[in-house]
Amino acid sequence: MFGVILAGGSGTRFWPKSREQSPKQLLRIVGPGTMIQNTVERLLPLIPADKIFMVTHALHAFETCRQTKTFGVPPSQLLAEPVAKNTAAAIGFAAKVLHEKDPDAVMAVFPADHVIKNPEAFHEILRRGEEVAAKGFLVTLGIQPTRAEQGYGYIKQGQALEDSEVAFKVERFIEKPDAATAKKFIDEGGYFWNCGVFLWKVSTILEEIQIHLPDLYEKLSAIVSHTIENNRKYPYRLLDSEGAKIYGSLASISIDYGVLEKSKRVALIPAKIQWSDVGAWDALQEVAEKDAHGNVFTENVTALDCSGSIIQGEERIIAAVGLKDLIVVDTPDALLVCNKNKAQEVKQLVNQLKEKNRPEVKLGVTVQKPWGSYTVLEKRDGYLVKRIDVNSGERLSLQSHNHRNEHWTVVSGTALVDLDDNQIILKENESLFIPLKSKHRLANPHGTPLILIEVQIGDKVDEDDLIRYKDDYDRC
Amino acid sequence: MFGVILAGGSGTRFWPKSREQSPKQLLRIVGPGTMIQNTVERLLPLIPADKIFMVTHALHAFETCRQTKTFGVPPSQLLAEPVAKNTAAAIGFAAKVLHEKDPDAVMAVFPADHVIKNPEAFHEILRRGEEVAAKGFLVTLGIQPTRAEQGYGYIKQGQALEDSEVAFKVERFIEKPDAATAKKFIDEGGYFWNCGVFLWKVSTILEEIQIHLPDLYEKLSAIVSHTIENNRKYPYRLLDSEGAKIYGSLASISIDYGVLEKSKRVALIPAKIQWSDVGAWDALQEVAEKDAHGNVFTENVTALDCSGSIIQGEERIIAAVGLKDLIVVDTPDALLVCNKNKAQEVKQLVNQLKEKNRPEVKLGVTVQKPWGSYTVLEKRDGYLVKRIDVNSGERLSLQSHNHRNEHWTVVSGTALVDLDDNQIILKENESLFIPLKSKHRLANPHGTPLILIEVQIGDKVDEDDLIRYKDDYDRC
Repeated sequence: MFGVILAGGSGTRFWPKSREQSPKQLLRIVGPGTMIQNTVERLLPLIPADKIFMVTHALHAFETCRQTKTFGVPPSQLLAEPVAKNTAAAIGFAAKVLHEKDPDAVMAVFPADHVIKNPEAFHEILRRGEEVAAKGFLVTLGIQPTRAEQGYGYIKQGQALEDSEVAFKVERFIEKPDAATAKKFIDEGGYFWNCGVFLWKVSTILEEIQIHLPDLYEKLSAIVSHTIENNRKYPYRLLDSEGAKIYGSLASISIDYGVLEKSKRVALIPAKIQWSDVGAWDALQEVAEKDAHGNVFTENVTALDCSGSIIQGEERIIAAVGLKDLIVVDTPDALLVCNKNKAQEVKQLVNQLKEKNRPEVKLGVTVQKPWGSYTVLEKRDGYLVKRIDVNSGERLSLQSHNHRNEHWTVVSGTALVDLDDNQIILKENESLFIPLKSKHRLANPHGTPLILIEVQIGDKVDEDDLIRYKDDYDRC
Repeated sequence: MFGVILAGGSGTRFWPKSREQSPKQLLRIVGPGTMIQNTVERLLPLIPADKIFMVTHALHAFETCRQTKTFGVPPSQLLAEPVAKNTAAAIGFAAKVLHEKDPDAVMAVFPADHVIKNPEAFHEILRRGEEVAAKGFLVTLGIQPTRAEQGYGYIKQGQALEDSEVAFKVERFIEKPDAATAKKFIDEGGYFWNCGVFLWKVSTILEEIQIHLPDLYEKLSAIVSHTIENNRKYPYRLLDSEGAKIYGSLASISIDYGVLEKSKRVALIPAKIQWSDVGAWDALQEVAEKDAHGNVFTENVTALDCSGSIIQGEERIIAAVGLKDLIVVDTPDALLVCNKNKAQEVKQLVNQLKEKNRPEVKLGVTVQKPWGSYTVLEKRDGYLVKRIDVNSGERLSLQSHNHRNEHWTVVSGTALVDLDDNQIILKENESLFIPLKSKHRLANPHGTPLILIEVQIGDKVDEDDLIRYKDDYDRC
């Protein structure tokens, strides 16, 4: 069985911890690792790493590779979408790639950013699902509803499948219902939440896509022929410009709406797995550890007389007095304070900030790069101070700037610097001046992390002032 | 008439904006300047700057001088207490100093951190008060209560004074009453809030201190003889070690309790001046501009559906959703989120943090110095990054460090640096290495501000690792 993890989240509902560059699946929200790391780890007892594939936006490809490599998932198994086109396209893309390997294999599809608190039950369900999928069904897992939630799709259970102890036919799919309808579903019973976990044979889903989404089917072959794996450091699969053009022309449609609701081959398996989609900040109260007063606090919180509240901070100290049902999310450059009942409105708020072109929507102060990360410590007119963290064995591009000089001071590790025609070893407690327009390259060829403080000075100090000449990650 | 501003606030109730090093009177909370600047400015139409004296803790003396110098108050008129000993000591100290200048003059006493929204009425009351004080009364202003506040002292009005249209005898003083008593006062009428503004002749208050606080009176002469004005840059009056010892032995007692409640010469003048002591964060709703929903927000706030809330931030963006009657105060290193009804409990919370030895109780990331300020941008094991702002014409001490090296990069202005036996001019976009143990001194002899980024590297990077050899501000 192949696993396909859909990691397409855009990260607005967990703002300000999530940003466009670092959506929820790439963050540590609950559990030991990031959401996608937890998802991979949950699958490993059932699906080996070399059979786990991922689909993500190209913007998140490096970081997704980096996070999943530690669990043995080969970067070549990451498929990078040039543009997000909903689940039908992503699943079709993955199915087409897997088809070359084994058209009769079962592929199981998983969202990258959900929580399942009973993994043993989940594994058992997947084993059963694999059997049903092998018979040619499109299997979807259904979660027993615990409340009249309007934010999910529902599946109406039909008759039991012949020869199966666990699977049922599907009477119908219902998109997000209104309040009254949702309540009716709960009262009547026999309705399940659609949790986005599916199992099917590669050949089955491609056949069904061919029937119900013929345009997508037709374009998939062309798309796959335009994948390239030319990145030396992180050889994930991305599309060349022609492939990207075709991908961009795909209809944006969900697999539920595009295929499952129309197909005659759908089966439902009810799953008691303590699932949560962790849809917004208030969901932390379902999935994280609470104190005696129902609070979910990070360690830096000092509280007096608080209950039912979620406070998530980083390094800054947070003092809370007399709070009830409040959400506070604190990051170095943006703070959210939100009534717990209004957690869904964070998305709307982020859209407002986007309209104002606020940079805090896209990036945080720490920006992940293929070679490590940089963190902005201060930016003012005429200068910018950054901490630069270069991972062991990585190096930045050979580059120059037209508007700024740079002053580098190594605070930990040893750097190897190319500066015009010279090569310089820069040790801890040593500084170097990088004049405007000089060609320079920063590398960490050693086994320990390299940390340096960079002071940029010039008439323009922003990321756009960058000319790349050579790059290990094909970003020229 | 002399003005004496008591600037002894310790700054716990406005945490995290206020810290031990920067209490409320030194902060911009409401109005054009800091609280003490607003207080000085309010007095200037009536009392010229060269007749305004101030009493403050030595810890705040430099900054208090700096802030009030811009309004023409000579630094020599600041009296620095080595330790806070409540208002009787501070007023006695000031009276003794003024006694040398003019024992028959009237001195008016003002808290440094209150708001008066009707300054014209205030000036008129002070003129009337001066007349009554000149007759030998201890005049206290009384504010008509608007609510059954338990946090203030009350004054019971007595009969009208002979020959006065404005002043009354005082029947009695009442310390902070319980809720029922406070309510009774409001219902009965004839009770006024004690707002801490007093007028009396220098000779009168000293006579009354001699009668009611003989120990204080006796020690005041000795204390004044131990004042020194040896600081070249900011020649405020501080006590030598002997003087500090005597000051430290004074009883900590308020002028109200120690003198006014016992004296036979007290007079009350009711004052309609729209007064607020701005006692805690919730008071901002009385004294600051509100939006249509009763919110007091700084410019960096983006809000959806909020009412009755106070959000005070700095540079970081703050997003607020669905808040009601909440206080949020955001600073670079500490965040407060507090129910508006619990604003008084912030003090208790700060005490908790103090017990935990949290550095955020004492200092913020920006620390005022006589020569300017420094701001910590990042501190981690083995290194620390600071921005250093040196005011025009100022210089730091000649110093050395045993545990750290420093890398300086000038981002704005020009520095003059002594480094062992060399003198170096360091211009914008130039860097300098200051090795461990070298004697060095940083100066800004130019007319424009100097800003530099300092990277400290060493086995210990804290403020204690400092040996001073020479200093313009007598801190060796």
